[in-house]
Amino acid sequence: MASAEEPLLHQYSENGITTLTLDQPKRRNSLSMAMLEELSTALEQVAQDSETRVVVLAAHGNVFCAGHDLTEIQNRFDDHEFQLALFKLCSKVMQQIVNLPKPVIARVAGVATAAGCQLVASCDLAVAADTARFATPGVNIGLFCSTPMVALSRNVSRKHAMEMLLTGELIGAARAETIGLVNRVVDEQVLDETVYRMARTIADKSGQAVKVGKEAFYRQLELPLADAYEFTSQVMAENMQASDAREGICAFLEKRNPEWSKD
Amino acid sequence: MASAEEPLLHQYSENGITTLTLDQPKRRNSLSMAMLEELSTALEQVAQDSETRVVVLAAHGNVFCAGHDLTEIQNRFDDHEFQLALFKLCSKVMQQIVNLPKPVIARVAGVATAAGCQLVASCDLAVAADTARFATPGVNIGLFCSTPMVALSRNVSRKHAMEMLLTGELIGAARAETIGLVNRVVDEQVLDETVYRMARTIADKSGQAVKVGKEAFYRQLELPLADAYEFTSQVMAENMQASDAREGICAFLEKRNPEWSKD
Amino acid sequence: MASAEEPLLHQYSENGITTLTLDQPKRRNSLSMAMLEELSTALEQVAQDSETRVVVLAAHGNVFCAGHDLTEIQNRFDDHEFQLALFKLCSKVMQQIVNLPKPVIARVAGVATAAGCQLVASCDLAVAADTARFATPGVNIGLFCSTPMVALSRNVSRKHAMEMLLTGELIGAARAETIGLVNRVVDEQVLDETVYRMARTIADKSGQAVKVGKEAFYRQLELPLADAYEFTSQVMAENMQASDAREGICAFLEKRNPEWSKD
Repeated sequence: MASAEEPLLHQYSENGITTLTLDQPKRRNSLSMAMLEELSTALEQVAQDSETRVVVLAAHGNVFCAGHDLTEIQNRFDDHEFQLALFKLCSKVMQQIVNLPKPVIARVAGVATAAGCQLVASCDLAVAADTARFATPGVNIGLFCSTPMVALSRNVSRKHAMEMLLTGELIGAARAETIGLVNRVVDEQVLDETVYRMARTIADKSGQAVKVGKEAFYRQLELPLADAYEFTSQVMAENMQASDAREGICAFLEKRNPEWSKD
Repeated sequence: MASAEEPLLHQYSENGITTLTLDQPKRRNSLSMAMLEELSTALEQVAQDSETRVVVLAAHGNVFCAGHDLTEIQNRFDDHEFQLALFKLCSKVMQQIVNLPKPVIARVAGVATAAGCQLVASCDLAVAADTARFATPGVNIGLFCSTPMVALSRNVSRKHAMEMLLTGELIGAARAETIGLVNRVVDEQVLDETVYRMARTIADKSGQAVKVGKEAFYRQLELPLADAYEFTSQVMAENMQASDAREGICAFLEKRNPEWSKD
Repeated sequence: MASAEEPLLHQYSENGITTLTLDQPKRRNSLSMAMLEELSTALEQVAQDSETRVVVLAAHGNVFCAGHDLTEIQNRFDDHEFQLALFKLCSKVMQQIVNLPKPVIARVAGVATAAGCQLVASCDLAVAADTARFATPGVNIGLFCSTPMVALSRNVSRKHAMEMLLTGELIGAARAETIGLVNRVVDEQVLDETVYRMARTIADKSGQAVKVGKEAFYRQLELPLADAYEFTSQVMAENMQASDAREGICAFLEKRNPEWSKD
């Protein structure tokens, strides 16, 4: 568990938007076992928190996240159990983001590497400062970015993923946008403005609909076409029975703003 | 079934190219139950029609297609069976396009939203006017675009799909081309010229080969690599036995134009 | 087997980089049964060759590869067994590239069509001269590019693949880069320099890590997300036990260059 000392992860909520900020800049916000545990706990909490409608994942300092803590790994070289637990917890956190019933937006300034790049790829949306850079450099230290590539290769095409994985080289923010790793690149001066405007837009939607939609999105992606349509037809018909769909359709036809339920 | 009145879908065939035109501009060419039934029937017919080699899907008016007819849905709020039937028929029509043994080209001018955007995504090819715009705005009315996202997420990358689905915002034609939702964007003045030149190019190919290839394309996409190669190797070998392959290869080697069979 | 005469495939190794060069420019480097057999044998050898760390796939002459040898096919029109064997061997060679425990970089100058385009798509990475062009023109001869599309459709999005497959038209190098078929396009004058710099970069990594990573990459792509993470977490933990990972992490923390093992 996280130490009783200062938390590694800063959490702040306002108007339905919860920002989780990696807050160990001196250690390049690395995903140590302790940081992963705090992230996992925080994601469990926001999943349950009815006030949170959208999550922003951010970081303090000039490194977004440098991936695993290599010193921690070096200290436990012979502890195979520890390493397996570390990679499994990391994989669990990434899947918690995907399975969270609320959208997660990565706010990326600085360098995001290895499992840090995976964090960005795992979020539903990502906005980067023009100074952001990305890499999966595990190959440089003999430890291929095998878990990061799960998320990376589900965001960008094969050759682009392979180039990052095999060369280990940094790519700039513009390239990350071109290949589909991030949605938008903006001047760092307007990064917060852009991220929170996007978060606000989504937070103002029906929480019911967003929850239903995000869950269905990732599930249908893994189904053959016919099964995907069978599944989502049911989802749509059930979504129609929800109070927000009726309110939303009536509001639209009456040309007024909808009032969403609170759950 | 469609009313005995004016058809909602206009159909026109010339030189092997059949154009299906959504023709209810006053209702924004919405996919009402009646429109979907006409579309489904028309697709069944062109599937059988030996004269039709390529289908163009177009629309009259300044809205390509606004998705479901919300007034129709509102009038049947408590009719769960109707809604499920509606979403199932819509999903069936989208799959009829994918499974049609002839290529379908979307000709998009104006706005294509929700199931209208899904129509474009479901076609094999899409050409858009520079004035076209696209959105999956169900989230704005509390009814997430869960069936449209099946087609959308099989055309564009995850983050791009998620941005459209979660924000509900319109994207322009250029953006749609960048993310892969449409093949080409042209000045609206040359939209028909571009679409029908592309249709003509494909209509002049061997219908046998196009049928075999389109069917195999979507099937192999859902197979693991080894199975995909096992399957398509058989497809190629069988394709080789068809008269058009022999004619085509001979014509190529003899530097003359091939004469395709009529079936 | 290949004739006892001049080999169709030229092989050259230097400093861990093995270049396989299609060397039958007069026959447009077509993938005849003999050429495929030489390619298959060469790929088996480099898979075993401990000196080879990276493979470059190149071609002599102004055509990279024109796909199958149509004269050979024409001469065996009625030999269904031969054709099936041809397509199966071709599919085997493409999968040997994917399954090779060493990265393969396509060096593309000139035209790459049909199974030649498939070769490029099957490589892990591809660098093209600005004069390179690509097509899947089987549809023009009544023989749809059904096996090439397996590789093509796993590199580029559906509509882009379908446009190439249905129109049969050539696309330029810049377009190939835009849609993700090749990683980079450079002036032909610096093609070798670019390719071998990239090959050198990768050859200097840990061969252990690259082998583990490439194999895991293609396997996890075919798994659902949860299974992909379960699998790669194990891969990472095992990779950690390898000598190169320990050396690499220590070297990184000690700010020195790593010395990789030779196997």
